[in-house]
Amino acid sequence: MSFEIFTNDTLPHQQDGKKLVLGLTGLPARGKTYMARKLCRYLSWLGFSTEVFNIGNYRRDKVGVNIPAEWFDQNNEEGRAARDQCADAALADAIAFLKTSEGDVAIYDGTNCTRARRQKVEAAVSAESDMQLLWIESECTNEELVELNIRQTKISSPDYKHKDPQQAVEDYRQRIAQYQQYYEPLGEPDRLSSFVKVINIGEQLVLNRIHGFIPGRIVAFLMNLHTIPRPILMCRHGESEYNVENKIGGDPPLSSRGVLFAKRLADYLDTCSEVKEGSVRLWTSTMQRARETVSHLRLPTSPVHWKALDEINVGMCDGWSYEDVEHRMPQEHHLRTKNKLRYRYPRGESYMDLIQRLEPIIFELERCRDPVVLVGHQAVLRCLYAYFTGRSLDEVPHLDIPLHTIIQLTPRTYHCDENRVALDVAPVKTDT
Amino acid sequence: MSFEIFTNDTLPHQQDGKKLVLGLTGLPARGKTYMARKLCRYLSWLGFSTEVFNIGNYRRDKVGVNIPAEWFDQNNEEGRAARDQCADAALADAIAFLKTSEGDVAIYDGTNCTRARRQKVEAAVSAESDMQLLWIESECTNEELVELNIRQTKISSPDYKHKDPQQAVEDYRQRIAQYQQYYEPLGEPDRLSSFVKVINIGEQLVLNRIHGFIPGRIVAFLMNLHTIPRPILMCRHGESEYNVENKIGGDPPLSSRGVLFAKRLADYLDTCSEVKEGSVRLWTSTMQRARETVSHLRLPTSPVHWKALDEINVGMCDGWSYEDVEHRMPQEHHLRTKNKLRYRYPRGESYMDLIQRLEPIIFELERCRDPVVLVGHQAVLRCLYAYFTGRSLDEVPHLDIPLHTIIQLTPRTYHCDENRVALDVAPVKTDT
Ligand SMILES: Nc1ncnc2c1ncn2[C@@H]1O[C@H](COP(=O)(O)OP(=O)(O)OP(=O)(O)O)[C@@H](O)[C@H]1O
Ligand SMILES: Nc1ncnc2c1ncn2[C@@H]1O[C@H](COP(=O)(O)OP(=O)(O)OP(=O)(O)O)[C@@H](O)[C@H]1O
Ligand SMILES: [Mg+2]
Ligand SMILES: [Mg+2]
Repeated sequence: MSFEIFTNDTLPHQQDGKKLVLGLTGLPARGKTYMARKLCRYLSWLGFSTEVFNIGNYRRDKVGVNIPAEWFDQNNEEGRAARDQCADAALADAIAFLKTSEGDVAIYDGTNCTRARRQKVEAAVSAESDMQLLWIESECTNEELVELNIRQTKISSPDYKHKDPQQAVEDYRQRIAQYQQYYEPLGEPDRLSSFVKVINIGEQLVLNRIHGFIPGRIVAFLMNLHTIPRPILMCRHGESEYNVENKIGGDPPLSSRGVLFAKRLADYLDTCSEVKEGSVRLWTSTMQRARETVSHLRLPTSPVHWKALDEINVGMCDGWSYEDVEHRMPQEHHLRTKNKLRYRYPRGESYMDLIQRLEPIIFELERCRDPVVLVGHQAVLRCLYAYFTGRSLDEVPHLDIPLHTIIQLTPRTYHCDENRVALDVAPVKTDT
Repeated sequence: MSFEIFTNDTLPHQQDGKKLVLGLTGLPARGKTYMARKLCRYLSWLGFSTEVFNIGNYRRDKVGVNIPAEWFDQNNEEGRAARDQCADAALADAIAFLKTSEGDVAIYDGTNCTRARRQKVEAAVSAESDMQLLWIESECTNEELVELNIRQTKISSPDYKHKDPQQAVEDYRQRIAQYQQYYEPLGEPDRLSSFVKVINIGEQLVLNRIHGFIPGRIVAFLMNLHTIPRPILMCRHGESEYNVENKIGGDPPLSSRGVLFAKRLADYLDTCSEVKEGSVRLWTSTMQRARETVSHLRLPTSPVHWKALDEINVGMCDGWSYEDVEHRMPQEHHLRTKNKLRYRYPRGESYMDLIQRLEPIIFELERCRDPVVLVGHQAVLRCLYAYFTGRSLDEVPHLDIPLHTIIQLTPRTYHCDENRVALDVAPVKTDT
């Protein structure tokens, strides 16, 4: 495990010790890759070095795309041997990744449909004394859901690039049927293994022998997942008096331009179809400039003021300008320039501290099925934006989150739609 | 739901809306009352007004103690009618509690062993439009565990006050056998209900249709539970220079007496059998006075520095004395005196903010099976102490956590053992 992450000190869970192989299992079109990628994004954001090893990609590299369903028949010797080779290669790479000092979590994404196959994985992981294995199985008892999944994602897969959609669906169904014949779900014989079974996207979850810090976070994360698309509209508070004076920290009111923005934002949201229909949530921080901004809105809900959404705490530098920092504490300025992500203001917070503090917000955003309007602050929105768009931690402190601009994010299966609307109220340019 | 809790504003989960009935179910001696009480303590600490309604207590009130096992036979008409009456009375009280403006969560603690009984509860709860029901079932497939449970708790129950222990165990086994005949565990027919099934103290958990903020917290809490007793040794950092000068906030070093305490603490822990044997954890904050205190210890582990353990942030009053606050901001001083629990320092935190921030620490403390040595701060330790000893929120800001005193807490089934050791280094008396 890498040190220096949350606290510039030993990590709390570092004492738990083991590196983690997360193995996916389940029939095709059950959301395995979806969960693998989301978990990768979440864990990376928390600061764990995580990578996905997808068996299907190894297969496509090895034997190409456009393979007929028959090839996935367990009785097709050639297909079976090739698939086993791909699975072995992906597993070897996953374990090799964890053997490096960088790797914390390797996500092994494939069907892993038979007990024999899973035992092979268990054997490989338990041969490494500092690694543990956690299975995540996706089961769907709802056939309509599977049909929808195929139409939504599979027919646009590289495997079906030049195929007719209806034919592609038919072929995918056949491929599923091949797997179904020999699929052995996790159950009683696996009672000594660690696993999470996700049934019908979280309608039911079975947690078996879940121990340790990261497995606990993973389960908490999976509990909140759903696949209903809904937009998250985020923007910074209107321009504040400190923005005008180029000062950091503080709890200043809005400038006159900031008030103008708040009013324009209200008008914009009035015409915004996503937030007009049905229920919408309005979240903001406890700070004056954020409160003032939302006070102009006319949404059919009252704002929730989260302390966790307050701007990064700049500690002793509260009320200073960046030039003040540079002149009065050159050493601090230097440290910050060297590592803006992990730099912690004296008595204040670092971006990594902020990510820790924002984790409950991410959980609530994931859980929520309604559109959310979130009025926040520059550093806070950088962290949230990076989570949804999968930007790396190193980029976080440098992301462009301008004043007076609404960023609409809609999480989709494998990516996040983004739309930026700059309202016509030119603010000062703020330092970062 | 009561407002003004975490943020002095709308509660995040307030938008979820419904009040919660938590129904326990399972055979006797399965830890139902244990979980009911722990959840009550946890939820109350978070700020939800929670009460337990225990059917057994209603029975003891109605028909007294020392009832033979035969009375619990489902074919014993008289016993059955009386038990149903008690169950109905407890349920009515639970719902009445939620109908008051105060009640947030009612925990309905009984065996609720038959589907018919549970349907009656479901009907009563769904008759109230603003209430929802969540079942928590405890199942044990491990007979030794049940035997241990009976010996640990049942023979000291009021039901067996004047009985011979061996006879009491025999009687309790018979009582369990009576229930076993007609016990219908949660399963397929309950797939539309919300429930959590806890198998063998968390070896496996089944989560069914868990939605909403509080149900999510409850599940996260239950995931960490175990029943292995182990001590938590907590103390404040040694006396700091600010303690001597009677100032609040800041990040001062230890005074010379503070250093002396740190050394004595090291000696004390050297002789302390609980932390000498096997693995022990050492947790502290990121603040200088805490770091200096642990730097003298000789534990076989390195300290984990949690930012979440930092002392309450007093915002603008950082570095002031209480007299300064009183003279320079009399209005703030007045507000604080009026409601010390919810009072938030300008730009700083309230005790309720602190509790929110400490929730992950409580989860990690619950999860941990090793002894923990925790070097913290006055306000932080007040919150943690209140959680373990079940003190009410109103008491939190006034709890006595003196300097240079080790508080050893060992959570037991129905209470928490406490032992205080004042080391012989007289500190100044600190204000609060
Ligand atoms: N837990 C889940 N259960 C079922 N479907 C899900 C779940 N999570 C996401 N989905 C949906 O499943 C669809 C397909 O997902 P995905 O490509 O991840 O499947 P897969 O299991 O990886 O399939 P394959 O075996 O072909 O790789 C997506 O539309 C996604 O919304
Ligand atoms: N999830 C659990 N499963 C099994 N035992 C547990 C669990 N949690 C706690 N225990 C243990 O169960 C024992 C008895 O607990 P408790 O009195 O709560 O049982 P109960 O189910 O309420 O019994 P009764 O039906 O007689 O009221 C305690 O020793 C406790 O440590
Ligand atoms: Mg896939
Ligand atoms: Mg009980």
